[in-house]
Amino acid sequence: MHEHTFATLMAGGSGTRFWPLSRRTRPKQILPIAGDRPMIRVTLDRLGGQVPPERVLVATGADQEAGIRKVLPEIPAENFLLEPTPRNTAPCLALASATALARDPLAVMVCLPADHVIRPAEAFRNALTLATKRADRAGTLLTFGIRPTRPATGYGYILAGEETIPGVRTVREFEEKPGLEKAERFLKHGGYRWNSGMFTWRADAFLAEVETHLPVLATGIAKIARDPACLSKVFPTLPSISVDCGIMERTGRAEIVDAAFGWDDVGSFEALSRLIDRDQAGNYIRGDAVVLDGEGLIIDSGGGRTVGALGVSDLVIIATDDVVLVCSRRRAEDVKLLVGKLTLAGREDLA
Amino acid sequence: MHEHTFATLMAGGSGTRFWPLSRRTRPKQILPIAGDRPMIRVTLDRLGGQVPPERVLVATGADQEAGIRKVLPEIPAENFLLEPTPRNTAPCLALASATALARDPLAVMVCLPADHVIRPAEAFRNALTLATKRADRAGTLLTFGIRPTRPATGYGYILAGEETIPGVRTVREFEEKPGLEKAERFLKHGGYRWNSGMFTWRADAFLAEVETHLPVLATGIAKIARDPACLSKVFPTLPSISVDCGIMERTGRAEIVDAAFGWDDVGSFEALSRLIDRDQAGNYIRGDAVVLDGEGLIIDSGGGRTVGALGVSDLVIIATDDVVLVCSRRRAEDVKLLVGKLTLAGREDLA
Repeated sequence: MHEHTFATLMAGGSGTRFWPLSRRTRPKQILPIAGDRPMIRVTLDRLGGQVPPERVLVATGADQEAGIRKVLPEIPAENFLLEPTPRNTAPCLALASATALARDPLAVMVCLPADHVIRPAEAFRNALTLATKRADRAGTLLTFGIRPTRPATGYGYILAGEETIPGVRTVREFEEKPGLEKAERFLKHGGYRWNSGMFTWRADAFLAEVETHLPVLATGIAKIARDPACLSKVFPTLPSISVDCGIMERTGRAEIVDAAFGWDDVGSFEALSRLIDRDQAGNYIRGDAVVLDGEGLIIDSGGGRTVGALGVSDLVIIATDDVVLVCSRRRAEDVKLLVGKLTLAGREDLA
Repeated sequence: MHEHTFATLMAGGSGTRFWPLSRRTRPKQILPIAGDRPMIRVTLDRLGGQVPPERVLVATGADQEAGIRKVLPEIPAENFLLEPTPRNTAPCLALASATALARDPLAVMVCLPADHVIRPAEAFRNALTLATKRADRAGTLLTFGIRPTRPATGYGYILAGEETIPGVRTVREFEEKPGLEKAERFLKHGGYRWNSGMFTWRADAFLAEVETHLPVLATGIAKIARDPACLSKVFPTLPSISVDCGIMERTGRAEIVDAAFGWDDVGSFEALSRLIDRDQAGNYIRGDAVVLDGEGLIIDSGGGRTVGALGVSDLVIIATDDVVLVCSRRRAEDVKLLVGKLTLAGREDLA
């Protein structure tokens, strides 16, 4: 790949959606949620060595650094961008882009959430090559659009416009997470794509857009770039806003790469029903389980434990060393509320 | 109590209804299912020392002897009646009665399942005193009838007749486990009692009834009494029949003690909803659990584990070191089917 390409692995997740597999200090991205290796490890490996470790940045919180360094030992310590407090993606990616730009005035930045599932890796790398070339030559800000396979209500959608080069289109419209009826319309329409939250841009082009659309953020990031020691003082004062809302929806330079790979953001335990093969009885089982008269169960039994299920359906059952979660699949998105209740009850030890 | 009184603790349960708390070699009666001590320990202690250990027999299977001896160390080894294979209660109690009779021609036998919950113990002991006196003097076979507190469909019922002495009545009718409608009629009627499966009789009087109603059993037991070494050969050939069907429903000498104590046979996890106090949210929790938007949950989280439940109701959730059970409360009686499936799948290690 392009010798000026940098990658930022975005690993800011707090780990409450996959509780009890994930914990405050053991978030989803360092766990093998979707396979047999930590998700952030898979994310790095997916690049296939096209971006060398010296040009891979990791944006995360200070309390997660140790866990991530263990699974990504080849990433140099100075490539960890530790956010003193989470400020959403715009500050994070502005800081990462400024860091790359300081090292290489021609830097092209690839921004990758560290906890998505993408298959096959080959198709991903092809899309990335296309995106980095386009960003480098045209100075546009590219987002990766995924062809919807179901009327998902948990994702934002993008309506693609004219083709600018083969495989890349203009953005006609960003759509917030829709209701089910609207999502079904988007699916039928054919021109809508899921907004994957992955981006590619030239660092200078992106920072110019930040300057235009989020000047307060630009000023703060410039200050940190001049004096990295002030990060902990300045970063928490930056506007907390997503790069979608703050930049992509405002700029005239957004483009969309028509991604030809399978993608899942693994947003909740419900995603496991898409990632684990269904058995003959209609259940999604990882680990050891015996089920009688039940279907639609999502089961993960860790550490040599066995789950027995009788006469129950459409549940998430997660067994770990110290915690067992039993949750309705309809409520899988709300596991974080249960963690909130635990924390309120003074049970931070388990959160 | 009467110096000729013997007690037989019936501990033949196979341990499949309380799986995974109970296992093949760790059946319900040696577990603290209903409190903080093994159920068979509580059963012995409930006698309040009124029957000394030398006169307490334990009827159980060979594979369960070791576990029971650990929790009842004061019972002499020769008081364990080890059934080579389960043959239901008539052979078991005939053997126990013959054993007592050989030691004491005036023996009165009290037969107690080792896995029932009875409160208060004082009322139980009063009923026992009454029953042993009556059995000794009248030679009748007494069963303990419990006043129904709900239209249970899992118990047999007895219609009581005339009072013979205060607190004791004749038996007018034995009724098999009824359907719900019939059970509701029995409850309203007032004269029906639950058949508790506890009995008191003079050993000679009982064996005379066995002679009359189950002569094949009587012959087999007489053979074993003469030559205990032939137990393993003869016992498995005895007719497998309950003492209710084989003797109590056939004899003209049955009487019923009107028991004034609370009783539960702890037949399935559903019983825990009667034995554990309901919390403010309407759940029955033993151990540590956090519940959000759920009610009617029966939870037992052992060994320092925490159960988290979200958006689920009316489930049984049991967490042990190696197994987690999630079961619909409506199916609690069928846990044994799940154990059967495990066994068929070659997972005897967990059964």
